[in-house]
Amino acid sequence: MPPTPVEHSPLHQIAIMPHTHRLTPGMPVHLAEHSTRGADHHPSRPDAEKEFRKLRHELIVWQQKLYAEGRQKLLIIFQAMDAGGKDGTTRKVFRGVNPQGVRVTSFKAPTHDELAHDYLWRVHRNVPAAGMIGVFNRSHYEDVLVVRVDELVPEEVWQQRYEQINHFEQLLTATGTRILKFYLHISKQEQKEQFQERLNVPEKHWKFSKADLEKRRQWDDYMTAYQDALQRCTTPWAPWYVIPSDSKWYRNLAVMRIIIHTLREMNPSYPPGEAGIMDITIED
Amino acid sequence: MPPTPVEHSPLHQIAIMPHTHRLTPGMPVHLAEHSTRGADHHPSRPDAEKEFRKLRHELIVWQQKLYAEGRQKLLIIFQAMDAGGKDGTTRKVFRGVNPQGVRVTSFKAPTHDELAHDYLWRVHRNVPAAGMIGVFNRSHYEDVLVVRVDELVPEEVWQQRYEQINHFEQLLTATGTRILKFYLHISKQEQKEQFQERLNVPEKHWKFSKADLEKRRQWDDYMTAYQDALQRCTTPWAPWYVIPSDSKWYRNLAVMRIIIHTLREMNPSYPPGEAGIMDITIED
Repeated sequence: MPPTPVEHSPLHQIAIMPHTHRLTPGMPVHLAEHSTRGADHHPSRPDAEKEFRKLRHELIVWQQKLYAEGRQKLLIIFQAMDAGGKDGTTRKVFRGVNPQGVRVTSFKAPTHDELAHDYLWRVHRNVPAAGMIGVFNRSHYEDVLVVRVDELVPEEVWQQRYEQINHFEQLLTATGTRILKFYLHISKQEQKEQFQERLNVPEKHWKFSKADLEKRRQWDDYMTAYQDALQRCTTPWAPWYVIPSDSKWYRNLAVMRIIIHTLREMNPSYPPGEAGIMDITIED
Repeated sequence: MPPTPVEHSPLHQIAIMPHTHRLTPGMPVHLAEHSTRGADHHPSRPDAEKEFRKLRHELIVWQQKLYAEGRQKLLIIFQAMDAGGKDGTTRKVFRGVNPQGVRVTSFKAPTHDELAHDYLWRVHRNVPAAGMIGVFNRSHYEDVLVVRVDELVPEEVWQQRYEQINHFEQLLTATGTRILKFYLHISKQEQKEQFQERLNVPEKHWKFSKADLEKRRQWDDYMTAYQDALQRCTTPWAPWYVIPSDSKWYRNLAVMRIIIHTLREMNPSYPPGEAGIMDITIED
């Protein structure tokens, strides 16, 4: 097969505004004031899709360099209400990236063994290794979201967790991991439409659970829990981004832009070869 | 973004001869008699590349169904001499597949902790979960390859491993895992050209290690070790495939064909929804 054109894409061509959607440490968070609609942030879906495809090519190149360099780590966390697009964003953004360098971890309800440890234990086991991109589909934030809303532990327990999480993420950052945290923000109406789609299309039935309706009834409680998590865990080293996610085309672009901006900053490069590599003759 | 055309590709259009390159249980293996050249097996590179792209679309659909079904598992093992194409095949075949459903494990020299356990311990920890495709870049076969050639354990130890491996793979098969084992077969001349390429291109220096030259000097010992592993571990439940790999275009197609054939046999399907799902009304 001929070399993919990807290899020759010039990088850094597309300017990115990295602060859009990023929360500021110490500032209050009111999710109702954050738009969920793509059209509020971008004038043209075709242009957005074109830019997304270009940036995806850039991502493929950066991932190769990150892996080759084998030193830095990138951790990407997706949180959202049901049908918010965690799966879809992962699929669209990382499509085409070498799966050898990307590890997706989907955190479900904890197992018996996981519950026998502290809540960060299973998370720590799954953080990315050097050279890797780790993607968390749900995360330790569930331990201040569903755990809080469903009162699975007393308040004095989950109240301590925000600071514990900040310390944990500070440790990861200090030891070479860049952390990006995306809250995929959809409206309650958009969730209804997505649920209806899952009910209407037989191939999507498996994605729907009646338990999802119970969580929908708790929408306001979840918004309160999300607001607290976003506010109290937006740190200088690991800020949250609130991504308008009713329009998939904009959601994908907004996430991709932030990932690309971050990789440009990390700027991984191909490492030098071993000493003396130029003097080698390969025998038959 | 519009729905990807992938979703609408009709499956089963391309007929596949699954027995090509598959070894037969109980038959002696002579690698020198197996061609490494693609042109010996396919008349047209453009046609091969066209078929490969079609099958890759089919793979994306099968992976979605396997994941949705959440019942069966597929384990794909790549073994090869250095520069044989383990990384490249993984990248090309799985490009475009949802990374959430594919987990690649690269087995390196065992750690202190891994060496403190039996050699199948770290392998067993990494076999695919229900609904997943697991890809092994190297595997437990190193324990009868490099371990044998470099005499890291006594012969009476590695001699027992073939049967242990067969039993292990039988267990996996009996519990819902399909296993595909690919030996990517390159000529010694092709390895030389690949090594030279790694020396010539600065971006590829990181892939080259002087230790690779020592392994190259042991080529004949490795061929003997591979022949024994392929012969003694080709079982009805987990046969080896010897893939001609000097030509990447043919290698990729040959591997892809076998994976697609296997997924057609496994025939995963979207599971039914929960009972009563059709009577649901979603509240605002």
